[in-house]
Amino acid sequence: MRDGRAARFLRETPLWKLQPPALGLDAAEGVELWLKLEHQQVSGSFKARGMMNRLLAHDIPASGVVVASGGNAGIATAAAARALGVRCEVFLPGVSPEAKRARLRALGADVVVVGEQYADALAACLARQRETGALLTHAYDQPEVVAGAGTLGREIEQQGGLPDSVLVSVGGGGLIGGLAAWFEQRSRVIALEPERAPTLFRAREAGEPVDVEVGGVAADSLGARRIGTIAWEITQRQVRDALLLPDEAIRAAQLWLWKELKLAVEPAAALPLAALQTGAYVPRAGEKVCLVICGANVDPASLA
Amino acid sequence: MRDGRAARFLRETPLWKLQPPALGLDAAEGVELWLKLEHQQVSGSFKARGMMNRLLAHDIPASGVVVASGGNAGIATAAAARALGVRCEVFLPGVSPEAKRARLRALGADVVVVGEQYADALAACLARQRETGALLTHAYDQPEVVAGAGTLGREIEQQGGLPDSVLVSVGGGGLIGGLAAWFEQRSRVIALEPERAPTLFRAREAGEPVDVEVGGVAADSLGARRIGTIAWEITQRQVRDALLLPDEAIRAAQLWLWKELKLAVEPAAALPLAALQTGAYVPRAGEKVCLVICGANVDPASLA
Repeated sequence: MRDGRAARFLRETPLWKLQPPALGLDAAEGVELWLKLEHQQVSGSFKARGMMNRLLAHDIPASGVVVASGGNAGIATAAAARALGVRCEVFLPGVSPEAKRARLRALGADVVVVGEQYADALAACLARQRETGALLTHAYDQPEVVAGAGTLGREIEQQGGLPDSVLVSVGGGGLIGGLAAWFEQRSRVIALEPERAPTLFRAREAGEPVDVEVGGVAADSLGARRIGTIAWEITQRQVRDALLLPDEAIRAAQLWLWKELKLAVEPAAALPLAALQTGAYVPRAGEKVCLVICGANVDPASLA
Repeated sequence: MRDGRAARFLRETPLWKLQPPALGLDAAEGVELWLKLEHQQVSGSFKARGMMNRLLAHDIPASGVVVASGGNAGIATAAAARALGVRCEVFLPGVSPEAKRARLRALGADVVVVGEQYADALAACLARQRETGALLTHAYDQPEVVAGAGTLGREIEQQGGLPDSVLVSVGGGGLIGGLAAWFEQRSRVIALEPERAPTLFRAREAGEPVDVEVGGVAADSLGARRIGTIAWEITQRQVRDALLLPDEAIRAAQLWLWKELKLAVEPAAALPLAALQTGAYVPRAGEKVCLVICGANVDPASLA
């Protein structure tokens, strides 16, 4: 995807290699922890990769682009639209924090708040798209969006070599779909979800995507009600492990990332550390574990 | 300095190479901006390098270590003392923020608040040292402290090669002393100070270290009243440029770092960006400019 325009718009984010004690962990011999600081990407999350890829793949009509998003996908779409000089309309559920809405308006987007959860905003967005003919960017379930997210995997490998495992949070599955497609069986990609937003976990139990009740500390980023069809197909082939984490552990890891590493991130970005700190995931001796730090659209006052 | 104990205690912090537009700059052709994310060092600032170096160079008495510090040096000393299992007593001026005092207590240090400015805390600390025989760590004016800070220069060069210029904030001069000693004339080290804390600038005007009135947004980190004698000697030989920046530009750059790059840093860390954004420093075509992001001991609520 990195044609000239995407490369100028996106950033190469740092890959930070740390020893386990720096993350408060007493791990097996030779374990390396790689933090991919993707929360420092343009728009404050990995979503910029997929959204710019989607916009560059199409001629954009005068009515511009529309997106329904709990926040990060909307912000990324708005940032990409601004960079390309096209209109952008964003549909948000009521659960989205005011900080994200303000950011969208600052990026020049028109913001529409509808219903309580992501599915409500999506329905309104789809109706609007039919009405205006605008280009729809889906928060996670379009091929260009998943492929764009996959460039994060390529960047990790270019920077640090091949990790043995990749710990990544799952909402609708755009990021894990892209990463699993990139790494295939070369690295073990581990899906992490909050207990209160177990979208992929329940789909795996049911053997197919199903609607799930979602809530909890990371609902604004990871609160997709149903796993995306693209992510479902890819993860069925490439992802063996899906783990659930309690909200308290996610919140504790988020506060720890600020206090000890001075990384100010949103709850969704803290699941990889929570998986290690709770022992839900235990690296083997010598394992190179990549933790994807996926977003920073957080009110910094919530870290104080 | 990197014997086993220091290496286990310290972190290699990321060097993040960005293009000028990522920092809101319209720079000459080929300019590269390297952000050294040293605010992610142990203790939240570069000070951990010098303090651990000082502690490892001495047998520490039962009375432990004492330090006077506007905050970061105290936090770094407390963290190093805890890592080595020795006592630590920290003297702070009234200007120091409560967030830093709380952090010190959490690190197990005894905190004493004295007077309004750094010099008051230093006087009380020196008296205490004579009384107990504890090892004194000076916030910036001891050879091991300056040499420890200089390892930051070595790390930048190992990670990214030799920069053409290094933009660095100056308080008492420990960091610039170490960096200028490392880079000598191979890179151009630029001293940056707030207009309201012009400690090195006034010394250069006077031809010798002089006491200076200090205040402003970065006073808790850069509010040393007089430049250190070690830094004075080194900078006289190695540093040609000392620039002053207004508080408004420093604060604007600090907020920009959070909003656009998701780096939550203290005002002192924002002077390099402020120098570029105000045009106080203008890179030449092709120049590789390293911005030292020196500390993150900030109340995150102040960024909202």
